[in-house]
Amino acid sequence: MNFFKVKKMAEVFDEIRRFSPLGASTISILEAVGRFLAEDLKAPEDLPPFARATMDGYAVRARETFGARENEPVVLRVVGEILMGEAPAFSLGPGEAARIATGGMLPEGADAVVMVEYTEENDSLVEIKRPVAPHENVIEAGEDYRKGELLFRAGRKITPGVAGVLAGFGITQVPVRARPKVGIISTGDEIVPPEETPAPGKIRDINSYSLFTAAKEASSTPKLYGIVPDLEETLYETLEKALSENDVVLISGGSSVGTRDFTLKAISRLPGAEIICHGIAVKPGKPTILARAGNKAVFGLPGQVASALLIFYLLVRPLLLHLQGARGEDLFLKKILARAARNIPSTPGREDFLRVKIEDSKEGPLAHPIFKKSGLISSMAEADGFLRIPENVEGVYAGEWVEVYLLP
Amino acid sequence: MNFFKVKKMAEVFDEIRRFSPLGASTISILEAVGRFLAEDLKAPEDLPPFARATMDGYAVRARETFGARENEPVVLRVVGEILMGEAPAFSLGPGEAARIATGGMLPEGADAVVMVEYTEENDSLVEIKRPVAPHENVIEAGEDYRKGELLFRAGRKITPGVAGVLAGFGITQVPVRARPKVGIISTGDEIVPPEETPAPGKIRDINSYSLFTAAKEASSTPKLYGIVPDLEETLYETLEKALSENDVVLISGGSSVGTRDFTLKAISRLPGAEIICHGIAVKPGKPTILARAGNKAVFGLPGQVASALLIFYLLVRPLLLHLQGARGEDLFLKKILARAARNIPSTPGREDFLRVKIEDSKEGPLAHPIFKKSGLISSMAEADGFLRIPENVEGVYAGEWVEVYLLP
Repeated sequence: MNFFKVKKMAEVFDEIRRFSPLGASTISILEAVGRFLAEDLKAPEDLPPFARATMDGYAVRARETFGARENEPVVLRVVGEILMGEAPAFSLGPGEAARIATGGMLPEGADAVVMVEYTEENDSLVEIKRPVAPHENVIEAGEDYRKGELLFRAGRKITPGVAGVLAGFGITQVPVRARPKVGIISTGDEIVPPEETPAPGKIRDINSYSLFTAAKEASSTPKLYGIVPDLEETLYETLEKALSENDVVLISGGSSVGTRDFTLKAISRLPGAEIICHGIAVKPGKPTILARAGNKAVFGLPGQVASALLIFYLLVRPLLLHLQGARGEDLFLKKILARAARNIPSTPGREDFLRVKIEDSKEGPLAHPIFKKSGLISSMAEADGFLRIPENVEGVYAGEWVEVYLLP
Repeated sequence: MNFFKVKKMAEVFDEIRRFSPLGASTISILEAVGRFLAEDLKAPEDLPPFARATMDGYAVRARETFGARENEPVVLRVVGEILMGEAPAFSLGPGEAARIATGGMLPEGADAVVMVEYTEENDSLVEIKRPVAPHENVIEAGEDYRKGELLFRAGRKITPGVAGVLAGFGITQVPVRARPKVGIISTGDEIVPPEETPAPGKIRDINSYSLFTAAKEASSTPKLYGIVPDLEETLYETLEKALSENDVVLISGGSSVGTRDFTLKAISRLPGAEIICHGIAVKPGKPTILARAGNKAVFGLPGQVASALLIFYLLVRPLLLHLQGARGEDLFLKKILARAARNIPSTPGREDFLRVKIEDSKEGPLAHPIFKKSGLISSMAEADGFLRIPENVEGVYAGEWVEVYLLP
């Protein structure tokens, strides 16, 4: 098979980054985890807004406790108690202390808290048996964030920690980018829907289901467009409809020469379509097509079931996350270092991605390659991730550290 | 503060595993990713059901191609073409070959495929210019899975690869365990809902929002029960209601002695409640309560915002996944090895978990500890994961390999 526009992986990523992220809307932070901020957010005020105790004890002026010891305590006058959730009605003068609980607001004049364990109170006098440094056992006003400070940049992934920060500021609605809609088309005269019992010579559609579920994991909204027989006109009509209803269309399935020709022709006929690549210097997954029509993308994925899902993770998922506004490392699968469990040869001039199982060992995680044909879906069910061998490398030795991208 | 039933982390995990997983129901595989199989699944048939070509070319009897060379080709008679999706109407006799495309069904008698690149066809005769080994360029019947073979054990996480396998067998509905319902209660007189502007001395509720979103990430169904003031009776009533409507209840928020006492008392009063632990040998997060009432669990989480979320990831999330039927490593956050970026002291006798940022380096991922108070939510927004220092270790040296649990 000839590929007329073979690109390297890095070149394809550059093209992916040229698509414009989708539009933004505002949603509740309760629903926003896994989405990406559409705007920079600044701190509207100090967090916390006032100094708070982090221990139960006595609010004091730290300097007055210097030199305090078990046998020579410093004695302070207890002028009041700070009630939870209330601003103290008094300020702390010289020689004074106030009872305070964890989370309580420090009175004016106080700058530290002595833990209750190191005190003894009698008749409104408290013995302080250990010194505290200024700011000890206190969270200062603005210690989490100062008013006006940049909280998060646009593109930041919203995690439970980020949601917590936003709640702390009362920001319960956040601007996020839309989830991409993904149309999924299967092709091939030999493919039947999973619900059917395949006649001899036919097999069930696997790609539609693995791609649909993988798109959901990537915070996208997939839709199945069924199985198209090997007829260029039918494929074109389905493709045009899917493209009008989605941001990204994935064509997969049939892997015969005929199907591949039809796919390329149908994609090329789309109004304004530009073939970005036909063939990628990667194994497996070489026969991948990427085209753009306006700001929409069409992938012609390899027919082999393991290759199709691998290319989804390597290229389609980064595009879906880019369209949602993700940036940097968030576009890619989480990467770990592991040791190759055996020697692995590789052909320079292309990137190799081997499906691997990860096993713990004393020398670190061991990556065991799964040497199965890329037409076998069992290899993807078994894999924990992909071991990457860069294009300028002739292979790796057993024990060598390698990069492994973990499946989500 | 005194804890009357301090346990080690490992002991708490043992208790967590004693809860019974929730009931099962059957759902579409399109919705099942991230859920856990409720039953073992076996292969109902061979996958693929017949031998398929993995290349375009000619189906042959491999033995007849032995010795074939560019200059001394083996000549075979082309007896037909295999159409995609159809069973060949003929079988292959001695001296015969048949045209076949990738994915085509091998005719009886054939055991290999010669790539079209190494052939030349003229007048129904094909020259074979390279030998092929038996099974070369063929996926055998049952090469993915053999009929009756165990596909996946109960508890297996459903990934896109697993969904693909199930589609291949026509298993479009799968038995999965229910998502746990999680009730979330905040306590403390100083806490107001995020929508409100806090009066002096009060702060907004952070824990409800970080825990709600973290529970969603753990495939659970959270529900907020609002903020309860520091009154034992009110807390008990809210707790009882939340427990009747959920599988797990999380109480968090107020961190003053009074609130902590009320929480312990209210949990103890629940009918049939057993306090599993009051205090855990872990830092941060020591003041954690875990109780069970029947097969339901109540956590009293630390009030400090970073500690509450950390204990969620270390203990609550494993319980939520266990209730969904997950097993083994799937209960825990993904673990990587990283090098400590600096010396880190630790106190033996408890496990330490430090919030860390991960940075790539030539010597592997570097874990930079975030030394911030556990009352600061910014530390959780910044963290990539938790560095674990086991209880019998006095600290780690800069450059030493350490375990880091990655935040999802």
